[in-house]
Amino acid sequence: MIAKSQKNWSGDAAALLRVGEGFALADVDPQSTPGYEKTKVEAAEDLASGAGQLDEYQERLFAQSRVDATNASVLLVLQAMDSAGKGGIVRHVVGSVDPQGVSITAFKKPTPEELEHDFLWRVERRLPETGIIGVFDRSHYEDVLIGRVRELAPTDEIERRYGAINEFEKRLTDGGTRVVKVMLHISSDEQKARLEERLERPDKHWKYNPGDVDERELWPKYMEAYQRVFERTSTEHAPWHVVPANRKWYARIAVQNLLLEALESIDPQWPAATFDVEVEKKRLAAT
Amino acid sequence: MIAKSQKNWSGDAAALLRVGEGFALADVDPQSTPGYEKTKVEAAEDLASGAGQLDEYQERLFAQSRVDATNASVLLVLQAMDSAGKGGIVRHVVGSVDPQGVSITAFKKPTPEELEHDFLWRVERRLPETGIIGVFDRSHYEDVLIGRVRELAPTDEIERRYGAINEFEKRLTDGGTRVVKVMLHISSDEQKARLEERLERPDKHWKYNPGDVDERELWPKYMEAYQRVFERTSTEHAPWHVVPANRKWYARIAVQNLLLEALESIDPQWPAATFDVEVEKKRLAAT
Repeated sequence: MIAKSQKNWSGDAAALLRVGEGFALADVDPQSTPGYEKTKVEAAEDLASGAGQLDEYQERLFAQSRVDATNASVLLVLQAMDSAGKGGIVRHVVGSVDPQGVSITAFKKPTPEELEHDFLWRVERRLPETGIIGVFDRSHYEDVLIGRVRELAPTDEIERRYGAINEFEKRLTDGGTRVVKVMLHISSDEQKARLEERLERPDKHWKYNPGDVDERELWPKYMEAYQRVFERTSTEHAPWHVVPANRKWYARIAVQNLLLEALESIDPQWPAATFDVEVEKKRLAAT
Repeated sequence: MIAKSQKNWSGDAAALLRVGEGFALADVDPQSTPGYEKTKVEAAEDLASGAGQLDEYQERLFAQSRVDATNASVLLVLQAMDSAGKGGIVRHVVGSVDPQGVSITAFKKPTPEELEHDFLWRVERRLPETGIIGVFDRSHYEDVLIGRVRELAPTDEIERRYGAINEFEKRLTDGGTRVVKVMLHISSDEQKARLEERLERPDKHWKYNPGDVDERELWPKYMEAYQRVFERTSTEHAPWHVVPANRKWYARIAVQNLLLEALESIDPQWPAATFDVEVEKKRLAAT
């Protein structure tokens, strides 16, 4: 029996984090821990117990997809400013699932081949198969975030994309994929501290890119672009969640909780045998 | 400082497991634990400590590949009879590595499109990128194993494939990929017990396939085909290792050890900064 995802929480985390009518990113405190009133140490314990649940859910999801006519999968879309902790989510939350049941794609600057197609082309190719938890580390939302801030496409093309994204995600959810969209929200000061740490530690230098400082100058424009994304693409079928991420431990249990909730809503079951178990026992015994 | 992979072992595991001149699969006891004289409980502790080492090695490998002109990657090729524990290796050994640093492919029965190409075509497409640990759960060796046993190709085509595999793997290793080839070796009785367990447990029924019993009848032919594979494709640049796997805990630390050894031989280092650290600190401070 799998425990309910909410048991460690003082409130309905998914509801508290969901972007709804009248949402303003500027009102979210990146330091806060909505719905969770326990300590960092307790959060680590809750993360460990949730890890086992997540793993079992995914195995059930996969097992059922092999046998029954189900089409369920989960797609976690992660967006954030640099150093907000996407990699930590993948390592510490998704990493608790059997690696055979996970498909991770880190979307980089589009290749020349990718640019020869619509912006959703490369995304389509990386969708998770049935039974799998897919993770997008960055996604099609880059095309309306950096795309807007850096004016990589004309305004009317950016406008077109919001609608295209909504229709695309509607098709995914209609087809059985639970789309869990998460923006990890850190403060500009927190990013500064994290980049400083990368500069202090030789084993972190490889993660630092001088371009990060240039992007920092555009912080307000990025926040504006995120606000626009939330207004245009937080839909009934695929709502956004803004997760305060200055405290890494909070962001991790919060995203784990969103994944658990998505899997609970699928409620995958071990499939029944498609063969006669007693006949097979006899056949096997005879070998 | 990363500890040496051999410290928990009473002998050189890689050398003990390696298929060399005069090797006979029939002489390997699937119940044995070559080079390891400790208990199952101690093995679990050793596996946990090796997990951290493997994770750090992979992160260094990846970091270095982003910055320096290196081409190193690791490819673990897993072959075995059904239920020998390939999935457990992926989950419990490979699962300790950051999922962003791992690429797993489970090769199934070839698709019609794959059959329109040479047998190495689909394999080529799934090779790990630089800095990544790739895992093949089954591989191009199926084409000379089931391919031979079930006569899916003419004899001279099977013969051609051994040479093609050797040349292919030589190119990979020349290009910087460490190829770690492992056969997990269980006894026929152990397989019977594991299949019986799948039939006993409703949460394991989905893993059982009536065809498994038919394959069991061909056990001696498969052992013959494996022996042939070892004779023809255990090369200097990409040797085979036969890992006794009746004891799952032994198979896991043994494969972990082979991976650690491969990474030690690469000896990846944190790359030096490609920018002026002091200049960047000032630029960042000014934001």
